[in-house]
Amino acid sequence: MSSTVTLAHYLFTRLRQLGIESVHGVPGDYNLVSLDHLKPAGLNWVGDANELNAGYAADGYAQMKGIGALMTTFGVGELSALNAIAGSYAEYVPVVHIVGSPSTTAQHERMLLHHTLGDGDYKVFANIYKQVTVAQANLHNTETATSEIDRVLRTAWLKSRPVYIELPSDMVTKEVPAESLNQPLDITFPENNQAVEIAVAENILSRLYSAKRPVLLVDGCVIRHHLKAEATEFVLKTSLPIFTTPMGKGTIDECLPNFGGLYAGSGSYDNVRELVESSDMVLSLGLMKSDINTMRFSYNLPAHNAVDLSMEFLTIEGQRCDIHMYGLLKRLTNLLDTSKLVRPAQELVYDVHRTASANLPPAASYPDTTITHAYLWQQLSKWLQPNDMLCTEIGSSYLGVWDTQFPANVFAISQTLWGSIGYTLPAAQGVALAARELGRPGRVILFEGDGSLQLTAQAIGTMLKLNLDIIIFLVNNDGYTVERWVHGMEESYNDIPAWRYSLLPETMGARLGKGGNARTMQVRTRGEIEALWTTEEFNKVKGMQFVEVFMPKLDAPVPLKMFCTSAEKNNAE
Amino acid sequence: MSSTVTLAHYLFTRLRQLGIESVHGVPGDYNLVSLDHLKPAGLNWVGDANELNAGYAADGYAQMKGIGALMTTFGVGELSALNAIAGSYAEYVPVVHIVGSPSTTAQHERMLLHHTLGDGDYKVFANIYKQVTVAQANLHNTETATSEIDRVLRTAWLKSRPVYIELPSDMVTKEVPAESLNQPLDITFPENNQAVEIAVAENILSRLYSAKRPVLLVDGCVIRHHLKAEATEFVLKTSLPIFTTPMGKGTIDECLPNFGGLYAGSGSYDNVRELVESSDMVLSLGLMKSDINTMRFSYNLPAHNAVDLSMEFLTIEGQRCDIHMYGLLKRLTNLLDTSKLVRPAQELVYDVHRTASANLPPAASYPDTTITHAYLWQQLSKWLQPNDMLCTEIGSSYLGVWDTQFPANVFAISQTLWGSIGYTLPAAQGVALAARELGRPGRVILFEGDGSLQLTAQAIGTMLKLNLDIIIFLVNNDGYTVERWVHGMEESYNDIPAWRYSLLPETMGARLGKGGNARTMQVRTRGEIEALWTTEEFNKVKGMQFVEVFMPKLDAPVPLKMFCTSAEKNNAE
Repeated sequence: MSSTVTLAHYLFTRLRQLGIESVHGVPGDYNLVSLDHLKPAGLNWVGDANELNAGYAADGYAQMKGIGALMTTFGVGELSALNAIAGSYAEYVPVVHIVGSPSTTAQHERMLLHHTLGDGDYKVFANIYKQVTVAQANLHNTETATSEIDRVLRTAWLKSRPVYIELPSDMVTKEVPAESLNQPLDITFPENNQAVEIAVAENILSRLYSAKRPVLLVDGCVIRHHLKAEATEFVLKTSLPIFTTPMGKGTIDECLPNFGGLYAGSGSYDNVRELVESSDMVLSLGLMKSDINTMRFSYNLPAHNAVDLSMEFLTIEGQRCDIHMYGLLKRLTNLLDTSKLVRPAQELVYDVHRTASANLPPAASYPDTTITHAYLWQQLSKWLQPNDMLCTEIGSSYLGVWDTQFPANVFAISQTLWGSIGYTLPAAQGVALAARELGRPGRVILFEGDGSLQLTAQAIGTMLKLNLDIIIFLVNNDGYTVERWVHGMEESYNDIPAWRYSLLPETMGARLGKGGNARTMQVRTRGEIEALWTTEEFNKVKGMQFVEVFMPKLDAPVPLKMFCTSAEKNNAE
Repeated sequence: MSSTVTLAHYLFTRLRQLGIESVHGVPGDYNLVSLDHLKPAGLNWVGDANELNAGYAADGYAQMKGIGALMTTFGVGELSALNAIAGSYAEYVPVVHIVGSPSTTAQHERMLLHHTLGDGDYKVFANIYKQVTVAQANLHNTETATSEIDRVLRTAWLKSRPVYIELPSDMVTKEVPAESLNQPLDITFPENNQAVEIAVAENILSRLYSAKRPVLLVDGCVIRHHLKAEATEFVLKTSLPIFTTPMGKGTIDECLPNFGGLYAGSGSYDNVRELVESSDMVLSLGLMKSDINTMRFSYNLPAHNAVDLSMEFLTIEGQRCDIHMYGLLKRLTNLLDTSKLVRPAQELVYDVHRTASANLPPAASYPDTTITHAYLWQQLSKWLQPNDMLCTEIGSSYLGVWDTQFPANVFAISQTLWGSIGYTLPAAQGVALAARELGRPGRVILFEGDGSLQLTAQAIGTMLKLNLDIIIFLVNNDGYTVERWVHGMEESYNDIPAWRYSLLPETMGARLGKGGNARTMQVRTRGEIEALWTTEEFNKVKGMQFVEVFMPKLDAPVPLKMFCTSAEKNNAE
């Protein structure tokens, strides 16, 4: 390698070394020149229809690949992506957001350029991004640019959160030293003090050994911090009863004999709630006690012997200790003496009853051919296959799959905390692209509501352009059902225009018919969807399979009804 | 009226008193209850497909009505709209952004709710909005809420910029005093010191009287500050040669005998440039010397006798004096003695030559049936009618209409400074809705590029839902032509997925056929578009008329080519 490379080449090579193969974004005049440098660094450009979609797609891609990248133009472009990056920040997804900005000369002279607010302030957007990124760099100086790049990329990975890189247009082709590219970026997690780590691990294990009914509870921060492997190894070794939170789904194989079900406080099935809440030791990994994840703070975990491992600290009975989960998990696995653990006394059986849902209005009755939520999400357990990648939109689908049992190694993606509707369609584009690059087995499956789809529908065009393999179930239930359950069941503000969804692929460029890259279908009955699910060609998933699923307007999964009726009360208080 | 009303009713009544009849936005659980209070206050709800579209639509609506309103939910919703509000800020458009936020209790307790970043900080998004709004209020206190509402709404109007109102969900139905609703909000511009105003006006007029070749130059800030009527009155009374900037188009009747053409430095026609730059007194109104508006800072106005009126100050030969344009314009009109003005010596004739464009690559040659930019925008002058509302997307269309001569009272809308592609389609929805509410004569006409349309295509569905009357010319030129001219003429990052645009109306809910609310057409030749333009039914504009216009991929208006080739150079420096 030559002794210098262009600044853009350095940056893009670093991304490539981290496993990124595709960069999402929208071109703009302040980033156009940098785009020329993608291909020489081994990167593909995914032009999305708009920046919000690009940001969501980069998030989905990052969740599959460990890290993702987004490129936008200054001002207009970056602000359109802000909601996506804020979501990545809230949800612990490392997305590298590169903003092509006006030249350093133009900035220095405070020129009245387009895409500025007209006041000569070139810092305002970068300052906004400080609120939703964990590190920032402005590559205006060739002396510091490479170390700045390395610093923010490392931070993105270690904190598992987005970072912001400003690349002024005149800096793109400036030469910088290439030498450090010979070594991949150091992204190893920091080592804990060994003595402390051992002491903490032994403390936890002794509690586990002495507990009569210990349980494990795995939440979303494990997978978001790239610790699925370490957590799985520990969990498998214990053979203790293990439960997942809603956000934790996809971390643990739900077909393990010691898998106990989904715990979400009052949103849990009764037997799960009983098992978890009557435990004398709950060891939880990566808890995120947000309103949705805990069914509105209805957790009732025993305080005694409660141990919760977060990424960079743990709490034991409420006391905090700074320690990194990575080393601690490995230490726990190594030190664990399984002979000292109690054998689980009872078999774990699903029981689909939720006493806490008794106060809900009585469910409407539908013909037994109707695809209801009560039917769909449990039925889905039978159709899912190991390795499937299941993308669900916040709302009916996300709270629906609380009742779906996942086979091994299912990858699940949604937004439990940030909950931005419209997220999942573009995110699924990122997932499907990453899966193809990884050669990962399994199908990419998306459940998307009609209201949500309308926010970001353009992603269908991007999927088709990329010839991605994906199954899209567009749930047509005539409006914002989740909002109806919060407030305004029959109000027109919860209506949406009646799109002809099945025309979307063709409109957005699909090649239909034999040899094409898309098929569209409509299903209205249980028989129709089950027939589809047993069709070999459908299950092979070549190209886009777009299935419009008609469901009743006011039907909803029980957890959704529970959450929404509680949310309405809380909003008014 | 009863002595108290709900806080939401107070707020919405104030909006209604300002002339707002429709509020744009997207429902979310933190704003749902407030939506119930729209109708009782006489407001309609326009549910847009997403918040960015809603923000753009509110901007277009505001430009027609003087002020507009946007409602979103906390976090996810408001951040998605940020680019739109930043645009309204840059471009001086008063949009009232109302954000429904979690209850004051939830905020006080820093609850870990969805749509937060998970850190208990409920101020972060409001703080971001301080960067792009001119006043903010948090309606958490019934004691101060009504005066806070009045303060920010007054500021929005007087500064002609967006404001931010946070409405916590529990505050919606709280009672507040109704009394001040009996008086409409005072939005009169501040009076100038009369002696100063007279002295300044006399100074300006004496310069005008003694000038041999005085000219007037009208820019966009006049119309954006609601001063079109006052400016027009003055201009008409002077009968002096008057020129418009690109952003000023639509302020002045371009068929007036003393209208001289469009001045944009080197982007002007040669004779316009000669007339303006050789003048011995340029009196300019509301200048915005941004890169696009000045064809990359190529203004060459004489410094001697240069007088520029801004909204709240003026500059005479570079010296600044604080004074409000409103009073000053009226004073100028009143004091003007037309007998003392020189009579324009020469007739003003369009000459479509631009010497400064000589360095451009030679234009490709096309068959004389091809709809080229050189043909289209001049031809458009013949088809436009008085009162038409012409919406052009930044890019080919916006720089194309520099060569279009507007009949009387044409309303023009685009984003000269902020330049966010995708803006104009939803903005046109706002324009069409406002025009219907106002009973304004004239057709709403939109020129939108294919690349731009893909960003915000959902607005078509909203237009159809509202049964708006609009003509959409979708310019299909196979990608981001404006970007191609900046950089990467044949690069794939300037390509977009090939949508079947003519299917969009049907896909998004149009009722086609007789008695429906939409028609779609495709035109490929000059003969076809001219035939359309002479069709009576087409010109009557009932419902949506969606015309896909095929134009050559690399063809562009001369001003666009000039700007882009200069921009590329500047980005690299």
